[in-house]
Amino acid sequence: MSIRIITISRQFGCGGHTVGQLVAEKLGLPLYDNELVTKIAEKSGFDVSFVKENGEKVFTSMGMSYYMGFQSPSAYTPLSLYDQLYIAQHNIIRELAENEECVIIGRCADYILEERSDTLRTFIYADNEFRAKRIIETYGDNGQKIEKRIKDKDNSRSAYYRHYTNREWGDSANYHLCLNSGFLGIDECADLIVDVVRKKA
Amino acid sequence: MSIRIITISRQFGCGGHTVGQLVAEKLGLPLYDNELVTKIAEKSGFDVSFVKENGEKVFTSMGMSYYMGFQSPSAYTPLSLYDQLYIAQHNIIRELAENEECVIIGRCADYILEERSDTLRTFIYADNEFRAKRIIETYGDNGQKIEKRIKDKDNSRSAYYRHYTNREWGDSANYHLCLNSGFLGIDECADLIVDVVRKKA
Repeated sequence: MSIRIITISRQFGCGGHTVGQLVAEKLGLPLYDNELVTKIAEKSGFDVSFVKENGEKVFTSMGMSYYMGFQSPSAYTPLSLYDQLYIAQHNIIRELAENEECVIIGRCADYILEERSDTLRTFIYADNEFRAKRIIETYGDNGQKIEKRIKDKDNSRSAYYRHYTNREWGDSANYHLCLNSGFLGIDECADLIVDVVRKKA
Repeated sequence: MSIRIITISRQFGCGGHTVGQLVAEKLGLPLYDNELVTKIAEKSGFDVSFVKENGEKVFTSMGMSYYMGFQSPSAYTPLSLYDQLYIAQHNIIRELAENEECVIIGRCADYILEERSDTLRTFIYADNEFRAKRIIETYGDNGQKIEKRIKDKDNSRSAYYRHYTNREWGDSANYHLCLNSGFLGIDECADLIVDVVRKKA
Protein backbone atom coordinates (compact mmCIF):
# COMPACT_ATOMS: atom_id res chain seq x y z
CA MET A 1 0.00 0.00 0.00
CA SER A 2 1.48 3.33 -0.91
CA ILE A 3 0.81 6.68 0.74
CA ARG A 4 -0.79 9.40 -1.38
CA ILE A 5 -1.80 11.88 1.32
CA ILE A 6 0.10 13.16 4.35
CA THR A 7 -1.84 15.04 7.02
CA ILE A 8 0.12 17.20 9.45
CA SER A 9 -1.63 18.27 12.64
CA ARG A 10 0.54 20.66 14.61
CA GLN A 11 0.82 22.76 17.72
CA PHE A 12 1.28 26.50 17.21
CA GLY A 13 4.99 27.41 17.04
CA CYS A 14 6.39 23.88 16.68
CA GLY A 15 7.37 24.29 13.04
CA GLY A 16 4.63 22.06 11.62
CA HIS A 17 4.14 24.28 8.59
CA THR A 18 7.87 24.12 7.79
CA VAL A 19 7.84 20.34 8.24
CA GLY A 20 4.97 20.25 5.76
CA GLN A 21 6.85 22.46 3.29
CA LEU A 22 9.96 20.28 3.49
CA VAL A 23 7.97 17.05 3.08
CA ALA A 24 6.09 18.51 0.11
CA GLU A 25 9.34 19.69 -1.53
CA LYS A 26 11.19 16.42 -0.97
CA LEU A 27 8.29 14.33 -2.29
CA GLY A 28 7.35 16.78 -5.05
CA LEU A 29 3.78 17.16 -3.76
CA PRO A 30 1.56 20.22 -3.44
CA LEU A 31 1.16 21.62 0.09
CA TYR A 32 -2.24 22.74 1.36
CA ASP A 33 -2.16 25.14 4.27
CA ASN A 34 -2.90 28.73 3.26
CA GLU A 35 -3.51 27.26 -0.21
CA LEU A 36 -6.44 25.40 1.37
CA VAL A 37 -7.83 28.67 2.70
CA THR A 38 -7.96 30.09 -0.84
CA LYS A 39 -9.50 26.89 -2.21
CA ILE A 40 -12.15 26.80 0.53
CA ALA A 41 -12.97 30.48 0.02
CA GLU A 42 -13.26 29.98 -3.75
CA LYS A 43 -15.48 26.91 -3.54
CA SER A 44 -17.63 27.87 -0.54
CA GLY A 45 -18.20 31.55 -1.24
CA PHE A 46 -16.85 32.52 2.21
CA ASP A 47 -14.47 35.45 2.32
CA VAL A 48 -10.74 34.50 2.48
CA SER A 49 -10.29 36.47 5.72
CA PHE A 50 -13.28 34.68 7.33
CA VAL A 51 -11.88 31.25 6.36
CA LYS A 52 -8.39 32.20 7.58
CA GLU A 53 -9.68 33.59 10.86
CA ASN A 54 -12.22 30.87 11.67
CA GLY A 55 -11.07 27.76 9.81
CA GLU A 56 -9.77 26.14 13.03
CA LYS A 57 -11.95 27.78 15.67
CA VAL A 58 -15.12 26.69 17.33
CA PHE A 59 -17.75 28.73 19.14
CA THR A 60 -20.02 27.48 21.89
CA SER A 61 -23.71 27.20 21.01
CA MET A 62 -24.27 30.01 23.53
CA GLY A 63 -21.89 32.29 21.66
CA MET A 64 -23.28 31.19 18.35
CA SER A 65 -26.94 31.66 19.31
CA TYR A 66 -26.03 35.12 20.51
CA TYR A 67 -24.14 35.82 17.30
CA MET A 68 -26.98 34.54 15.17
CA GLY A 69 -29.51 36.56 17.12
CA PHE A 70 -31.23 33.57 18.77
CA GLN A 71 -31.95 33.30 22.47
CA SER A 72 -31.86 29.51 22.42
CA PRO A 73 -31.16 26.93 19.71
CA SER A 74 -34.03 24.84 18.34
CA ALA A 75 -34.52 22.16 15.70
CA TYR A 76 -35.10 25.02 13.28
CA THR A 77 -31.86 26.82 14.14
CA PRO A 78 -29.94 27.01 10.88
CA LEU A 79 -26.37 25.69 10.77
CA SER A 80 -23.97 28.27 12.15
CA LEU A 81 -21.54 29.92 9.75
CA TYR A 82 -18.77 28.07 11.57
CA ASP A 83 -20.43 24.69 11.04
CA GLN A 84 -21.06 25.58 7.40
CA LEU A 85 -17.36 26.45 7.10
CA TYR A 86 -16.40 23.12 8.68
CA ILE A 87 -18.64 21.24 6.23
CA ALA A 88 -17.16 23.14 3.30
CA GLN A 89 -13.60 22.34 4.51
CA HIS A 90 -14.58 18.71 5.08
CA ASN A 91 -15.90 18.31 1.54
CA ILE A 92 -12.95 20.10 -0.07
CA ILE A 93 -10.43 18.00 1.87
CA ARG A 94 -12.19 14.79 0.81
CA GLU A 95 -12.35 15.92 -2.80
CA LEU A 96 -8.68 16.91 -2.70
CA ALA A 97 -7.64 13.50 -1.35
CA GLU A 98 -9.68 11.81 -4.04
CA ASN A 99 -8.08 13.76 -6.86
CA GLU A 100 -4.43 14.39 -6.01
CA GLU A 101 -1.48 13.33 -3.90
CA CYS A 102 -0.72 16.10 -1.40
CA VAL A 103 0.32 17.31 2.05
CA ILE A 104 -2.47 18.87 4.14
CA ILE A 105 -1.85 20.94 7.27
CA GLY A 106 -4.38 21.03 10.15
CA ARG A 107 -8.16 21.40 9.81
CA CYS A 108 -8.98 17.93 11.22
CA ALA A 109 -7.75 16.38 7.95
CA ASP A 110 -6.48 13.33 9.89
CA TYR A 111 -10.04 12.65 11.10
CA ILE A 112 -11.73 13.58 7.83
CA LEU A 113 -9.51 11.17 5.87
CA GLU A 114 -9.26 8.50 8.55
CA GLU A 115 -10.89 5.79 6.47
CA ARG A 116 -8.39 6.15 3.64
CA SER A 117 -5.63 3.56 3.86
CA ASP A 118 -3.43 5.75 1.61
CA THR A 119 -3.20 8.51 4.22
CA LEU A 120 -0.34 8.96 6.68
CA ARG A 121 -1.55 10.93 9.71
CA THR A 122 1.10 12.83 11.65
CA PHE A 123 1.18 15.14 14.66
CA ILE A 124 4.01 17.62 15.29
CA TYR A 125 4.48 19.14 18.73
CA ALA A 126 7.18 20.51 21.02
CA ASP A 127 7.80 21.79 24.50
CA ASN A 128 6.74 25.35 25.31
CA GLU A 129 10.28 26.73 25.52
CA PHE A 130 11.04 25.71 21.93
CA ARG A 131 7.67 27.02 20.72
CA ALA A 132 7.99 30.35 22.55
CA LYS A 133 11.36 31.03 20.93
CA ARG A 134 10.07 30.10 17.49
CA ILE A 135 6.84 32.10 17.78
CA ILE A 136 8.75 35.30 18.63
CA GLU A 137 11.24 34.65 15.80
CA THR A 138 8.57 33.81 13.22
CA TYR A 139 5.58 35.96 14.12
CA GLY A 140 7.17 38.64 16.34
CA ASP A 141 6.22 39.84 19.80
CA ASN A 142 2.60 41.03 19.82
CA GLY A 143 2.80 42.34 23.37
CA GLN A 144 0.82 39.41 24.78
CA LYS A 145 2.55 37.14 27.32
CA ILE A 146 4.02 34.25 25.31
CA GLU A 147 2.70 31.58 27.73
CA LYS A 148 -0.82 32.94 27.28
CA ARG A 149 -0.41 33.17 23.51
CA ILE A 150 0.57 29.48 23.39
CA LYS A 151 -2.16 28.41 25.81
CA ASP A 152 -4.90 30.33 23.98
CA LYS A 153 -3.95 28.80 20.64
CA ASP A 154 -3.69 25.28 22.11
CA ASN A 155 -7.09 25.68 23.78
CA SER A 156 -8.63 26.99 20.59
CA ARG A 157 -7.25 24.20 18.36
CA SER A 158 -8.03 21.44 20.83
CA ALA A 159 -11.59 22.74 21.35
CA TYR A 160 -12.08 22.82 17.56
CA TYR A 161 -10.72 19.28 17.20
CA ARG A 162 -12.80 17.96 20.11
CA HIS A 163 -15.96 19.65 18.82
CA TYR A 164 -15.80 18.15 15.34
CA THR A 165 -14.15 14.79 16.04
CA ASN A 166 -15.14 13.98 19.64
CA ARG A 167 -11.49 13.09 20.26
CA GLU A 168 -8.54 14.57 22.09
CA TRP A 169 -6.13 16.62 20.00
CA GLY A 170 -2.59 15.27 20.47
CA ASP A 171 -3.72 11.82 21.65
CA SER A 172 -1.30 9.52 19.85
CA ALA A 173 -4.16 7.12 19.03
CA ASN A 174 -5.38 9.55 16.34
CA TYR A 175 -2.13 9.48 14.35
CA HIS A 176 0.39 7.09 12.82
CA LEU A 177 3.42 9.14 13.74
CA CYS A 178 3.83 11.81 16.46
CA LEU A 179 7.06 13.78 16.35
CA ASN A 180 8.47 16.17 18.94
CA SER A 181 10.15 18.77 16.72
CA GLY A 182 11.79 20.47 19.72
CA PHE A 183 13.74 17.31 20.49
CA LEU A 184 14.12 15.82 17.02
CA GLY A 185 14.61 19.03 15.03
CA ILE A 186 12.37 20.27 12.23
CA ASP A 187 14.51 18.83 9.39
CA GLU A 188 14.62 15.41 11.05
CA CYS A 189 10.82 15.40 11.46
CA ALA A 190 10.48 15.97 7.72
CA ASP A 191 13.10 13.29 6.96
CA LEU A 192 11.31 10.73 9.14
CA ILE A 193 8.00 11.37 7.39
CA VAL A 194 9.62 11.17 3.95
CA ASP A 195 11.36 7.94 4.98
CA VAL A 196 8.03 6.36 6.00
CA VAL A 197 6.36 7.44 2.75
CA ARG A 198 9.23 6.13 0.58
CA LYS A 199 9.39 2.78 2.37
CA LYS A 200 5.64 2.28 1.92
CA ALA A 201 5.85 3.02 -1.80
CA MET B 1 23.86 15.80 22.24
CA SER B 2 23.91 12.06 21.81
CA ILE B 3 21.32 9.58 23.03
CA ARG B 4 22.43 6.98 25.59
CA ILE B 5 19.06 5.67 26.78
CA ILE B 6 15.94 4.72 24.81
CA THR B 7 12.71 4.21 26.72
CA ILE B 8 9.93 2.27 25.03
CA SER B 9 6.43 2.59 26.47
CA ARG B 10 4.05 0.26 24.69
CA GLN B 11 0.50 -0.99 24.47
CA PHE B 12 -0.04 -4.69 25.06
CA GLY B 13 0.17 -6.64 21.80
CA CYS B 14 1.61 -3.87 19.61
CA GLY B 15 5.06 -5.46 19.34
CA GLY B 16 6.82 -2.96 21.62
CA HIS B 17 9.04 -5.66 23.11
CA THR B 18 10.14 -6.77 19.63
CA VAL B 19 10.79 -3.15 18.63
CA GLY B 20 12.97 -2.87 21.75
CA GLN B 21 14.84 -6.08 20.88
CA LEU B 22 15.52 -4.90 17.32
CA VAL B 23 16.68 -1.45 18.48
CA ALA B 24 18.95 -3.01 21.11
CA GLU B 25 20.42 -5.45 18.54
CA LYS B 26 20.98 -2.81 15.87
CA LEU B 27 22.62 -0.39 18.31
CA GLY B 28 24.47 -3.09 20.26
CA LEU B 29 22.85 -2.09 23.56
CA PRO B 30 21.49 -4.21 26.42
CA LEU B 31 17.68 -4.47 26.60
CA TYR B 32 15.89 -4.22 29.93
CA ASP B 33 12.42 -5.73 30.02
CA ASN B 34 12.31 -9.08 31.79
CA GLU B 35 15.99 -8.43 32.55
CA LEU B 36 14.79 -5.47 34.62
CA VAL B 37 12.47 -7.77 36.58
CA THR B 38 15.43 -9.93 37.63
CA LYS B 39 17.53 -6.88 38.50
CA ILE B 40 14.73 -5.33 40.56
CA ALA B 41 14.10 -8.62 42.38
CA GLU B 42 17.84 -9.03 43.13
CA LYS B 43 18.33 -5.51 44.43
CA SER B 44 15.03 -5.01 46.26
CA GLY B 45 14.60 -8.40 47.85
CA PHE B 46 11.13 -8.82 46.27
CA ASP B 47 10.38 -12.18 44.73
CA VAL B 48 10.78 -12.36 40.90
CA SER B 49 7.16 -13.47 40.48
CA PHE B 50 5.90 -10.55 42.61
CA VAL B 51 7.91 -8.04 40.54
CA LYS B 52 6.75 -9.61 37.29
CA GLU B 53 3.11 -9.69 38.36
CA ASN B 54 2.94 -6.25 39.97
CA GLY B 55 5.69 -4.17 38.35
CA GLU B 56 3.19 -2.27 36.19
CA LYS B 57 0.03 -2.46 38.26
CA VAL B 58 -1.49 -0.11 40.76
CA PHE B 59 -4.01 -0.72 43.51
CA THR B 60 -6.40 1.87 44.89
CA SER B 61 -5.73 3.08 48.43
CA MET B 62 -9.02 1.40 49.39
CA GLY B 63 -7.76 -1.92 48.08
CA MET B 64 -4.37 -1.36 49.63
CA SER B 65 -5.67 -0.40 53.07
CA TYR B 66 -7.79 -3.55 52.98
CA TYR B 67 -4.80 -5.62 51.88
CA MET B 68 -2.60 -4.12 54.56
CA GLY B 69 -5.22 -4.66 57.24
CA PHE B 70 -6.02 -0.95 57.75
CA GLN B 71 -9.50 0.54 57.76
CA SER B 72 -8.27 3.95 56.63
CA PRO B 73 -4.86 5.32 55.72
CA SER B 74 -3.13 7.73 58.09
CA ALA B 75 0.19 9.53 58.27
CA TYR B 76 1.52 6.42 59.95
CA THR B 77 0.35 4.01 57.24
CA PRO B 78 3.51 2.33 55.98
CA LEU B 79 4.23 2.43 52.24
CA SER B 80 2.32 -0.29 50.45
CA LEU B 81 4.31 -3.14 48.92
CA TYR B 82 3.31 -1.79 45.52
CA ASP B 83 4.66 1.68 46.31
CA GLN B 84 7.83 0.12 47.70
CA LEU B 85 8.14 -1.84 44.46
CA TYR B 86 7.68 1.37 42.42
CA ILE B 87 10.37 3.13 44.45
CA ALA B 88 12.74 0.18 43.98
CA GLN B 89 12.09 0.23 40.19
CA HIS B 90 12.51 3.99 40.12
CA ASN B 91 15.91 3.84 41.83
CA ILE B 92 17.15 0.96 39.71
CA ILE B 93 16.11 2.65 36.46
CA ARG B 94 17.90 5.85 37.51
CA GLU B 95 21.01 3.92 38.50
CA LEU B 96 20.92 1.99 35.24
CA ALA B 97 20.71 5.18 33.18
CA GLU B 98 23.60 6.65 35.11
CA ASN B 99 25.85 3.67 34.51
CA GLU B 100 25.15 2.24 31.07
CA GLU B 101 23.67 2.91 27.64
CA CYS B 102 20.55 0.78 27.22
CA VAL B 103 16.98 0.24 26.01
CA ILE B 104 14.32 0.13 28.75
CA ILE B 105 10.78 -1.17 28.19
CA GLY B 106 7.82 0.19 30.17
CA ARG B 107 7.74 0.87 33.93
CA CYS B 108 7.32 4.66 33.61
CA ALA B 109 10.98 4.90 32.56
CA ASP B 110 10.10 7.83 30.28
CA TYR B 111 8.85 9.80 33.30
CA ILE B 112 11.59 8.61 35.66
CA LEU B 113 14.32 9.70 33.23
CA GLU B 114 12.55 12.77 31.89
CA GLU B 115 15.17 15.23 33.09
CA ARG B 116 17.99 13.45 31.24
CA SER B 117 18.74 15.10 27.91
CA ASP B 118 20.43 11.87 26.73
CA THR B 119 17.15 9.92 26.80
CA LEU B 120 14.89 9.31 23.79
CA ARG B 121 11.35 8.62 24.98
CA THR B 122 9.16 6.58 22.62
CA PHE B 123 5.62 5.19 22.67
CA ILE B 124 4.54 2.24 20.50
CA TYR B 125 0.86 1.58 19.90
CA ALA B 126 -1.49 0.11 17.32
CA ASP B 127 -5.14 -0.37 16.51
CA ASN B 128 -7.01 -3.15 18.30
CA GLU B 129 -7.34 -5.38 15.24
CA PHE B 130 -3.56 -5.56 14.81
CA ARG B 131 -3.04 -6.11 18.54
CA ALA B 132 -5.72 -8.82 18.80
CA LYS B 133 -4.10 -10.83 16.01
CA ARG B 134 -0.64 -10.47 17.54
CA ILE B 135 -1.75 -11.33 21.08
CA ILE B 136 -3.32 -14.59 19.95
CA GLU B 137 -0.24 -15.44 17.83
CA THR B 138 2.25 -14.55 20.58
CA TYR B 139 0.53 -15.47 23.83
CA GLY B 140 -2.20 -17.83 22.66
CA ASP B 141 -5.93 -17.78 23.31
CA ASN B 142 -6.58 -17.84 27.07
CA GLY B 143 -10.34 -18.21 26.66
CA GLN B 144 -10.99 -14.58 27.59
CA LYS B 145 -12.63 -12.33 24.98
CA ILE B 146 -9.78 -10.60 23.16
CA GLU B 147 -11.42 -7.14 23.36
CA LYS B 148 -11.67 -7.50 27.15
CA ARG B 149 -8.10 -8.79 27.39
CA ILE B 150 -6.84 -5.69 25.55
CA LYS B 151 -9.07 -3.29 27.49
CA ASP B 152 -8.09 -4.74 30.89
CA LYS B 153 -4.38 -4.45 30.12
CA ASP B 154 -4.77 -0.90 28.75
CA ASN B 155 -6.75 0.14 31.83
CA SER B 156 -4.19 -1.45 34.13
CA ARG B 157 -1.16 0.16 32.46
CA SER B 158 -2.79 3.57 32.11
CA ALA B 159 -3.93 3.53 35.77
CA TYR B 160 -0.39 2.63 36.84
CA TYR B 161 1.09 5.42 34.70
CA ARG B 162 -1.48 7.98 35.89
CA HIS B 163 -0.98 7.01 39.54
CA TYR B 164 2.78 7.46 39.54
CA THR B 165 3.20 10.27 36.99
CA ASN B 166 -0.09 12.20 37.18
CA ARG B 167 -0.12 12.14 33.36
CA GLU B 168 -2.07 10.39 30.64
CA TRP B 169 -0.47 7.27 29.20
CA GLY B 170 -0.25 7.63 25.41
CA ASP B 171 -0.48 11.43 25.43
CA SER B 172 2.10 12.40 22.80
CA ALA B 173 3.33 15.23 25.05
CA ASN B 174 5.11 12.66 27.25
CA TYR B 175 7.28 11.29 24.44
CA HIS B 176 9.63 12.40 21.67
CA LEU B 177 8.40 9.86 19.16
CA CYS B 178 5.08 7.96 19.01
CA LEU B 179 4.87 5.18 16.46
CA ASN B 180 1.83 3.23 15.31
CA SER B 181 3.34 -0.22 14.71
CA GLY B 182 0.12 -1.49 13.11
CA PHE B 183 0.44 1.05 10.32
CA LEU B 184 4.22 1.45 10.12
CA GLY B 185 5.24 -2.16 10.78
CA ILE B 186 7.38 -3.37 13.67
CA ASP B 187 10.65 -3.37 11.71
CA GLU B 188 10.07 0.16 10.46
CA CYS B 189 9.38 1.38 14.03
CA ALA B 190 12.75 -0.01 15.08
CA ASP B 191 14.45 1.52 12.02
CA LEU B 192 12.96 4.96 12.74
CA ILE B 193 14.20 4.88 16.34
CA VAL B 194 17.66 3.72 15.28
CA ASP B 195 17.74 6.47 12.63
CA VAL B 196 16.94 9.14 15.24
CA VAL B 197 19.62 7.81 17.62
CA ARG B 198 22.29 7.62 14.89
CA LYS B 199 21.56 11.13 13.61
CA LYS B 200 21.84 12.56 17.13
CA ALA B 201 25.21 10.86 17.67
